[in-house]
Amino acid sequence: MVKKVAVLGAGSWGTALALVLADNGHKVILWGHKQEQVDAINKTHQNEKYLPGVHLPVNITATAELQTALEEIDFVVLAVPTKAMRDVCGQLSKFMTTPTIFVHVSKGIEPDTHLRVSEVIEEEIPQSLRKAVVVLSGPSHAEEVSLRQPTTVTAASTNMEAAERVQDLFINNNFRVYTNSDVVGVEIGGSLKNIIALAAGITDGLGYGDNAKAALITRGLAEIARLGSSLGANPLTFLGLTGMGDLIVTCTSVHSRNWRAGNMLGKGKRLEEVLESMGMVVEGVRTTKAAYQLSNKLNVKMPLTDALYGVLFHDVDPKVAVDELMSRGKTAELDDLSQILAGGEK
Amino acid sequence: MVKKVAVLGAGSWGTALALVLADNGHKVILWGHKQEQVDAINKTHQNEKYLPGVHLPVNITATAELQTALEEIDFVVLAVPTKAMRDVCGQLSKFMTTPTIFVHVSKGIEPDTHLRVSEVIEEEIPQSLRKAVVVLSGPSHAEEVSLRQPTTVTAASTNMEAAERVQDLFINNNFRVYTNSDVVGVEIGGSLKNIIALAAGITDGLGYGDNAKAALITRGLAEIARLGSSLGANPLTFLGLTGMGDLIVTCTSVHSRNWRAGNMLGKGKRLEEVLESMGMVVEGVRTTKAAYQLSNKLNVKMPLTDALYGVLFHDVDPKVAVDELMSRGKTAELDDLSQILAGGEK
Repeated sequence: MVKKVAVLGAGSWGTALALVLADNGHKVILWGHKQEQVDAINKTHQNEKYLPGVHLPVNITATAELQTALEEIDFVVLAVPTKAMRDVCGQLSKFMTTPTIFVHVSKGIEPDTHLRVSEVIEEEIPQSLRKAVVVLSGPSHAEEVSLRQPTTVTAASTNMEAAERVQDLFINNNFRVYTNSDVVGVEIGGSLKNIIALAAGITDGLGYGDNAKAALITRGLAEIARLGSSLGANPLTFLGLTGMGDLIVTCTSVHSRNWRAGNMLGKGKRLEEVLESMGMVVEGVRTTKAAYQLSNKLNVKMPLTDALYGVLFHDVDPKVAVDELMSRGKTAELDDLSQILAGGEK
Repeated sequence: MVKKVAVLGAGSWGTALALVLADNGHKVILWGHKQEQVDAINKTHQNEKYLPGVHLPVNITATAELQTALEEIDFVVLAVPTKAMRDVCGQLSKFMTTPTIFVHVSKGIEPDTHLRVSEVIEEEIPQSLRKAVVVLSGPSHAEEVSLRQPTTVTAASTNMEAAERVQDLFINNNFRVYTNSDVVGVEIGGSLKNIIALAAGITDGLGYGDNAKAALITRGLAEIARLGSSLGANPLTFLGLTGMGDLIVTCTSVHSRNWRAGNMLGKGKRLEEVLESMGMVVEGVRTTKAAYQLSNKLNVKMPLTDALYGVLFHDVDPKVAVDELMSRGKTAELDDLSQILAGGEK
């Protein structure tokens, strides 16, 4: 059945998801806050800046008016940057009258509050307007999705009926959607992968090879799972698309912003120089601080995160940090993995 | 304490491990079956063909005489190709008098018998000559190890004291060794990763992107874990260095033979052409057959392996195989992962 869906955020990921929905025959309203961009999309049927060369069919229309975007919709897809999420959710509540399902596709942990994105949404949108919040996440470069290359993602919600409705909405032969009830695991995996991507960039920048990077990714996922489990996640989620899958894409793609920032750090640049030269937010830097604080608060062992925190915020030489990680005491591999699943010592 | 170690097999991995042992001060006898190669190593202190440019210190000497290699040794490291393992083990028994610890570093499943490498060793070497069999495995390109780049591996044995002795023998600041008692998991992970590497090469050859490859690696590891668990492995092992870690290195390195073979298949070449043009064994082809047979015997669901088997042995078009995998029914992500850990339905 044809649905009417508001996609809020006209960046590359929002636009790619609008395209998936349009391919499935749905009617999509794409909201962006720049009138000029919106006009260009409606006129040229392209999002020139974020997905150049990709044709957007006529069942996608754009608007800069939030109220217009939200008229008579069946679903809201929140594809705005993490730091804008609280503000956008606050605004949209004013224009809504009937409860709906909110799908969010953003990654990160709010600084200071340490809240996940779905928790921010739940704080800002009154319960009377929310049927459910569903997170859609997984290994998915927007460019590849817009080219209809095979992609798999996970729709997670504590409300499994809502997760299944979102699965039905998005699934097609190029875009496969699994469901999961573990919102905490999906959100923590998606957010904390950026820490490991930064660290992977550092080891590559130091000139270390594939062996070191594979070790880093493997041990990195173990400590993400450890933190996630102590926050109530199902450890198995970290073995899935939003854990291991997304981590692999992020750590092995030179397009990843976090990897590139780490790479410059490994080559000897200082954090301020790196951030200045990138001219945009490097989510992993904020996430490293949040994870460091959380792990201390919850008393969870995260040696890679600790080492990266030292490199980013206390001028520890990256090479010294790696050497220290390598010379830790002799251990049995499964001890800490077992603890994750046993929910035992941390 | 200085040990005397026989390393059997003078390929790149045997030589790199000899170097780790020499760095730790041990006395190493490197056995190769070609007199010419052995003479060159002793004269030039290099293994020109397999690790060109790497200096081998004087505590590594080479021999082509198995009997000489095995005189008064404390450990035997078996670094011969998997298909030569049975023959070499049969021979060496004749020259040994006291029981010792055997470390093997080979990957694969014996065709027809479906035996793992440690099981082949146990069939060929009388119990009176075996203190223990330890498998050493993990994400480890030999070239990087020979350059002293950071590397992590796992030493696994049902005899944990032996695993710890092997950990002590090899560990240093560049080469970190973890222990694990799960021999089945370590051997299955190391062997079956080659199936997924072949498949990853195919999707790359088809021109699909990082999203597809990440999905393949993630779902591939899940089915490897499913088969391994039904053979008695600890599912957690597949989250570790010899599972996920080794899989990542193999699937993302263009140096992998299996990836290269898959890549050619994805570009439309036929299996015979590919094997001919490579001029060497592509272990993943044999392993796909063995895993396909095993999964049928044990009634374990392995959709990726089934699809690859069709491509390799029944001329299924790779694109058709991928499209079929993408259009399977809608599922909940953790259902099959949970079954692995629950040891329940397969």
